[in-house]
Amino acid sequence: MAHDCIFCRIVAGEIPAQVVHDDDRALVFRDVNPQAPTHLLVIPKRHVASADHLTREDEGLAGHLLLAAGEAARSLGLAGDGYRIVTNIGRNGGQTVSHLHLHVLGGRSLGWPPG
Amino acid sequence: MAHDCIFCRIVAGEIPAQVVHDDDRALVFRDVNPQAPTHLLVIPKRHVASADHLTREDEGLAGHLLLAAGEAARSLGLAGDGYRIVTNIGRNGGQTVSHLHLHVLGGRSLGWPPG
Repeated sequence: MAHDCIFCRIVAGEIPAQVVHDDDRALVFRDVNPQAPTHLLVIPKRHVASADHLTREDEGLAGHLLLAAGEAARSLGLAGDGYRIVTNIGRNGGQTVSHLHLHVLGGRSLGWPPG
Repeated sequence: MAHDCIFCRIVAGEIPAQVVHDDDRALVFRDVNPQAPTHLLVIPKRHVASADHLTREDEGLAGHLLLAAGEAARSLGLAGDGYRIVTNIGRNGGQTVSHLHLHVLGGRSLGWPPG
């Protein structure tokens, strides 16, 4: 855990969040600044700075996060109309919290380009 | 292979692509309609309709795709300034080819919301 990391503090229960899914490796909760009618964040419980910081040893974790994103989307009824999964890395990506997170956005038609 | 799938036909070598990375499970190539100075597509060689169609048996494949996206981004020098990884599912997601693909966009600052 990184004590100055807001997402680690959510994992630790020190900061509240609207949790949608919780397992041994991942947490899914609602974004506090939603950009779509449904906007979730999928994070690893272990601190990983971004998707660019995943190593080959993390292949299972990375897959778990992507699958958890889909499972959460389906559980909230997004699959029929569709949704988008996004992860930002660094400045050009627009990453605002240095703890890997997948955004899941649904409930409206998402435009192109994606930012 | 789905014979009516343009990405399966790229995997089969029937349609040319600017390939950046090629391994036993994944292919990375440049998007023909780039939305950023660098715009890559990361696809599984096996036909999977979207990220929503991945099952728990695909955890390793899903992780491999996410790691391959980062590796390709780093190999092209995107990591320093950052980049964005996006995958679209269905109509609301704006999915245009029904074969799972991760977009990797870099070389410019990407705005928010992501579409």
